[in-house]
Amino acid sequence: MIVLVTGGARSGKSKLAEARCLALGLPASYIATAEIFDDEMRARVDTHRARRGSEWRDFAAPLDVVGALAATEGQGPRLIDCLTMWLNNVMYHGLDVGHETARLCAALQAARAPVVLVTNEIGMGIVPDNALARAFRDAQGILNQEVAALADEVLLAISGLPVRVK
Amino acid sequence: MIVLVTGGARSGKSKLAEARCLALGLPASYIATAEIFDDEMRARVDTHRARRGSEWRDFAAPLDVVGALAATEGQGPRLIDCLTMWLNNVMYHGLDVGHETARLCAALQAARAPVVLVTNEIGMGIVPDNALARAFRDAQGILNQEVAALADEVLLAISGLPVRVK
Amino acid sequence: MIVLVTGGARSGKSKLAEARCLALGLPASYIATAEIFDDEMRARVDTHRARRGSEWRDFAAPLDVVGALAATEGQGPRLIDCLTMWLNNVMYHGLDVGHETARLCAALQAARAPVVLVTNEIGMGIVPDNALARAFRDAQGILNQEVAALADEVLLAISGLPVRVK
Repeated sequence: MIVLVTGGARSGKSKLAEARCLALGLPASYIATAEIFDDEMRARVDTHRARRGSEWRDFAAPLDVVGALAATEGQGPRLIDCLTMWLNNVMYHGLDVGHETARLCAALQAARAPVVLVTNEIGMGIVPDNALARAFRDAQGILNQEVAALADEVLLAISGLPVRVK
Repeated sequence: MIVLVTGGARSGKSKLAEARCLALGLPASYIATAEIFDDEMRARVDTHRARRGSEWRDFAAPLDVVGALAATEGQGPRLIDCLTMWLNNVMYHGLDVGHETARLCAALQAARAPVVLVTNEIGMGIVPDNALARAFRDAQGILNQEVAALADEVLLAISGLPVRVK
Repeated sequence: MIVLVTGGARSGKSKLAEARCLALGLPASYIATAEIFDDEMRARVDTHRARRGSEWRDFAAPLDVVGALAATEGQGPRLIDCLTMWLNNVMYHGLDVGHETARLCAALQAARAPVVLVTNEIGMGIVPDNALARAFRDAQGILNQEVAALADEVLLAISGLPVRVK
């Protein structure tokens, strides 16, 4: 069972994804892809952790989401939040996006316990001026298509509400 | 009866919202949140007013939408166009966004006659370079979620057509 | 039969539109609106052409989409990819957008064989800084509304999947 929750910034994606994940079983694993660079980010992560409560076990996987899926297999549903930050980390560290995407998709297809993934819609504004932003936008769109193709369920968050896409 | 109509720029939101509002009763009150700074804007507002026709009574509420809702209570449905301009005015005048949003939501929940609100989707492009744009985008997303949560009906305008979200 | 497929960058619009067009009959005509300025673009077009395969006959119409519709009438369905590039060309060459849009809409309404059109959602990001981008965004939104109004079917591509709008 693979669920993809996509949407714009502050569209309520994470909240929808958390609820969807908890509905799939308990306890749940929270796989965070944000890299913690400083105390401010550490504080934000701690705040989020406190909000989520004791149903969740926390994992950090800025790059190795495939390893985190293996480590949490057989222990309830997993939430990966989010693919946009993961893609950013993959590109920032100079890894091969196509190769990493293929590894992720293979791991999702092999997963036995449910996986809920959060991603972003970033391609519905004006074409960005700078080439890096355009390259990121293209990579994000292709990643979203590949994960959506293998997902059992795809939801688009609009103003905090889910629109069923698949 | 609270209806939220969201969508991108030039997606036909206002036209859908006007039609939805008129279907809820006559006469209807049009609560404009745009601030009129100059003759050009005055001319635009006059043009819009002429287009809308005699079913509408016009009110201007760049900030005090809560007061406008009170003033138009019991006189048919109200259309607030739009929350994005209102949020812009709230931030520009240095008011507390959280406090103003809470006041607005309380007024909507207390309203007896129907209210239709127009807002914008602004979070589906690339992350903006400047911090003010990011802050505005976050505030808009949170405002949209709060109003959508209490709305009876939420529509997303795509190419002038409504997609039912709630 | 007029079908409009809209969506963000890299949302899988073209692939959905190609499949929808081929389902409407064979052979199909591919009407490309991209202007070929250099060898790099020529190579890209050749790559796309090879991918599409022999079901397609190719036409180029950076501006004269109306003429291309006339030239391909009675020979199976037509795919116009895309309206955003066409609008860009119309504005770049200083033609009257309103007049060209009206001509296009009249040709679509007069068409006997099916037409599938691809367009873009570009109005869901932050308001662009520069006036040209805002003008383009407005023109794109109005064009999308006009074509959607006369279309029999409108699809929104999200992560490669179609959301039925009309």
